[in-house]
Amino acid sequence: MPATPFSSCSYLILQPRFNSYFNPLFRSFTYQLSTSLLSFNGIKFTAARIHSSLSPAAETESQSGGGGRSGALSPGPIVAGEVQRIDVNPPKGTRDFPPEEMRLRNWLFNNFKEVSRLYGFEEVDFPVLENEALFTRKAGEEIKDQLYCFEDRGNRRVALRPELTPSLARLVIQKGKSVPLPLKWFTVGQCWRYERMTRGRRREHYQWNMDIIGVPGVMAEAELISSIVSLFKRIGIKDSDVGFKVSSRKVLQEVLKCYSIPESLFGKVCVIIDKIEKIPVDEVKKELMAAGVSQEAVQELLQVLSVKSLTELEEKLGSSGEAIADLKQLFSLAEKFGYSEWIQFDASVGFDREGKLRAICGGGRYDHLFSTFGADDIPACGFGFGDAVVVELLREKGLLPDLSLQMDYIVCALDEDLQGSAAMVAHVLRKKGQSVDLVLESKPLKWVFKRAARNNAQRLVLVGSSEWQRGVVGVKILATGEQYEVKLDELI
Amino acid sequence: MPATPFSSCSYLILQPRFNSYFNPLFRSFTYQLSTSLLSFNGIKFTAARIHSSLSPAAETESQSGGGGRSGALSPGPIVAGEVQRIDVNPPKGTRDFPPEEMRLRNWLFNNFKEVSRLYGFEEVDFPVLENEALFTRKAGEEIKDQLYCFEDRGNRRVALRPELTPSLARLVIQKGKSVPLPLKWFTVGQCWRYERMTRGRRREHYQWNMDIIGVPGVMAEAELISSIVSLFKRIGIKDSDVGFKVSSRKVLQEVLKCYSIPESLFGKVCVIIDKIEKIPVDEVKKELMAAGVSQEAVQELLQVLSVKSLTELEEKLGSSGEAIADLKQLFSLAEKFGYSEWIQFDASVGFDREGKLRAICGGGRYDHLFSTFGADDIPACGFGFGDAVVVELLREKGLLPDLSLQMDYIVCALDEDLQGSAAMVAHVLRKKGQSVDLVLESKPLKWVFKRAARNNAQRLVLVGSSEWQRGVVGVKILATGEQYEVKLDELI
Repeated sequence: MPATPFSSCSYLILQPRFNSYFNPLFRSFTYQLSTSLLSFNGIKFTAARIHSSLSPAAETESQSGGGGRSGALSPGPIVAGEVQRIDVNPPKGTRDFPPEEMRLRNWLFNNFKEVSRLYGFEEVDFPVLENEALFTRKAGEEIKDQLYCFEDRGNRRVALRPELTPSLARLVIQKGKSVPLPLKWFTVGQCWRYERMTRGRRREHYQWNMDIIGVPGVMAEAELISSIVSLFKRIGIKDSDVGFKVSSRKVLQEVLKCYSIPESLFGKVCVIIDKIEKIPVDEVKKELMAAGVSQEAVQELLQVLSVKSLTELEEKLGSSGEAIADLKQLFSLAEKFGYSEWIQFDASVGFDREGKLRAICGGGRYDHLFSTFGADDIPACGFGFGDAVVVELLREKGLLPDLSLQMDYIVCALDEDLQGSAAMVAHVLRKKGQSVDLVLESKPLKWVFKRAARNNAQRLVLVGSSEWQRGVVGVKILATGEQYEVKLDELI
Repeated sequence: MPATPFSSCSYLILQPRFNSYFNPLFRSFTYQLSTSLLSFNGIKFTAARIHSSLSPAAETESQSGGGGRSGALSPGPIVAGEVQRIDVNPPKGTRDFPPEEMRLRNWLFNNFKEVSRLYGFEEVDFPVLENEALFTRKAGEEIKDQLYCFEDRGNRRVALRPELTPSLARLVIQKGKSVPLPLKWFTVGQCWRYERMTRGRRREHYQWNMDIIGVPGVMAEAELISSIVSLFKRIGIKDSDVGFKVSSRKVLQEVLKCYSIPESLFGKVCVIIDKIEKIPVDEVKKELMAAGVSQEAVQELLQVLSVKSLTELEEKLGSSGEAIADLKQLFSLAEKFGYSEWIQFDASVGFDREGKLRAICGGGRYDHLFSTFGADDIPACGFGFGDAVVVELLREKGLLPDLSLQMDYIVCALDEDLQGSAAMVAHVLRKKGQSVDLVLESKPLKWVFKRAARNNAQRLVLVGSSEWQRGVVGVKILATGEQYEVKLDELI
């Protein structure tokens, strides 16, 4: 949802329904929770008992993993007392990241970060908790009603950040001359919005922002679009999967100008036009006219916004204007950057309903943000989109990566007294950079092999007393079954 | 501060004054902020103007960086209107992470994560915003008064997490049989406590937690201490710099037992004894006796807690008890793991004032947490400490790493018309994994060289028209000054 007039337009974003979540990976997991009241320190809590309606995958895991053997989870005895329930689920609209989701999140964030590195961007971050005033500057915007805001114990009004850009502007201004322009900064940060929950739409999401501050002109925007395209290419998404609809806010400015509508009205007009998605066109027309735009201008405006080709736009606006010049330059740069096939002109960007990636050049949100701090003269542009965007695309296209746990070694003592020796073996291997799952109790070999399989361990090291006395350990390559003995200091 | 009876004791932690921050790297940066009121949309804000009282480093940067040339930051005109100030600083007790701090944070977190990988731990995370009830289960604890808690727009009581372990317990119980025990999970997550601000003590910090769930016995604790030791070794901290004071909560349990103080009193006694740091010993004695501990037992208790060697402890408790057995095993395992010189026995752990790392075995906090969800039978142990711990140690020892920005290439067109060609060059290099700072405007060569120096770029590529026509570009190795021409497709 636009956070500033036309903010969505200086962004590359997906439709809101894609904009703020990261789906659970295994929908097939279904838990039945039966609550039994348990007492601790005279307080009662809700305990979760999990019935066996798990997915096959989960079933296998719980069997093979020997969860039962090494202590399955089960509620304790039922005791009387006063009642206070604790939910085993996170708050509504938030997510846990168990290992499988965490691997996906890390994989995705590492791709964000690697692309940012290739493009020469420096990583920054800001507090997830900011002063509320930073986000409530602007009157009459949806975001205000979506803030997780409260008063801290020092009576300060604070809010969980709903977006990253205001914090960016704050930091840039704070740093002032100590940071030479142009800046190329990126952030992967969590943002919070209290929104109506819909399928797959959550109240927190991680957003990847890339911003270029201090560069006027289209070259910066061409570079940013290039960075997103290379992210998509890295993770297997093609131009046939997504496209960028591109326009320039200058288009709107020029229409307003040629009907001599004062600059001062621009922001207001943007806000009204952004409503085209939400309210009937006639309503929009009414509001525009109420704002002081002539009926003629309104007609022209809506016509121009329906234009789908640069040539057509040129006919309407003439070839002299900045809008045309910028857009022509952007499309020629797109060829050099090698992503022409990813973008298409569409004057209606900011108003489309298809949930396709879209971009409007001109960095609208920044004019506003830097004005907030009294620095109107900073050219800037950037984009941000949520982790869910990419995950949804990958899921739809069946491109989600297989990210199973990987372990170099599992090390096990064949005898309680040899656990210290097994610890030595683990120590040696870890010093050499090998990841080691050290078995910390005496377990049957059957259990050890199941654990090794679950962890995708490459090698199993068995520490037996006779071998240890000879200064060697037994190694088994689990993929091939090949076995050999090796001296402790020759382990790699 | 203990979040559960003895929680600090199943942790490896530093004293609170070290426990929750990440110092700004460049104290020498001092800003003078002069506020001028600026109007935007009829609202007024505070703008920061930064005077030239910056550190030499910053001065040089701002000169060499050409911040001025490409648009220095300065407040706009002063206009009348109603007043609302926006601070350029983050909320009290929170931190921004500009590039230099972010590099340090990434370096530190990557060390946390690499050690966790070597030890075969899987990464997990939980919402930074949890249901308040998860943290307020326990009556009469400081943490309750330090919660950032509020009511969301759905009238749910929520809180920013002050610690990670309750969320861990919640997720483990929620997953139930679908996750086979033992679990080895780690998290690097941000935690929030509204505390009195002291030098270097903030209200948010990142905490590295490692937890082993489902393993009874000391082997798990020995493994955890080993992981912290290897972190310290990785980053250059020696056993002469820090030490671990080790004890077992069973020591306390046995003393209570031999004075036949009922099990049910244990938690209460722990809470009281933890106050020894904060209130006079006589007060503690009073409280213990009021709780029903005999004067004799109190005397003995305080005596035992002053013991500094295992032998001495053995004399007091006899050699038959579990406490002695556990501690002996831990110290023998420490030898095998190779960190004997890092740990020392000290029965007073949990009550020392020196701010040294300390550990008490026995996983106290977990008994409690899992009880919360009605699963009392899960053995578990873990540690957590804040990012500040390591940074402070490194700073004190002068071991902070030099983490300057590194760039493989800076690419610049010698002529406006060649920007597209420069974009092509950047595109080729990035596809080969090279990081490229593409100059996005036409700038004088002087500016380009200064920027290259600031970014520590290895190579400069100049795209000139005559070379481009010959299908080559000029490359300069900036360290040596060596220059050569290369074909576009031969760039690496």
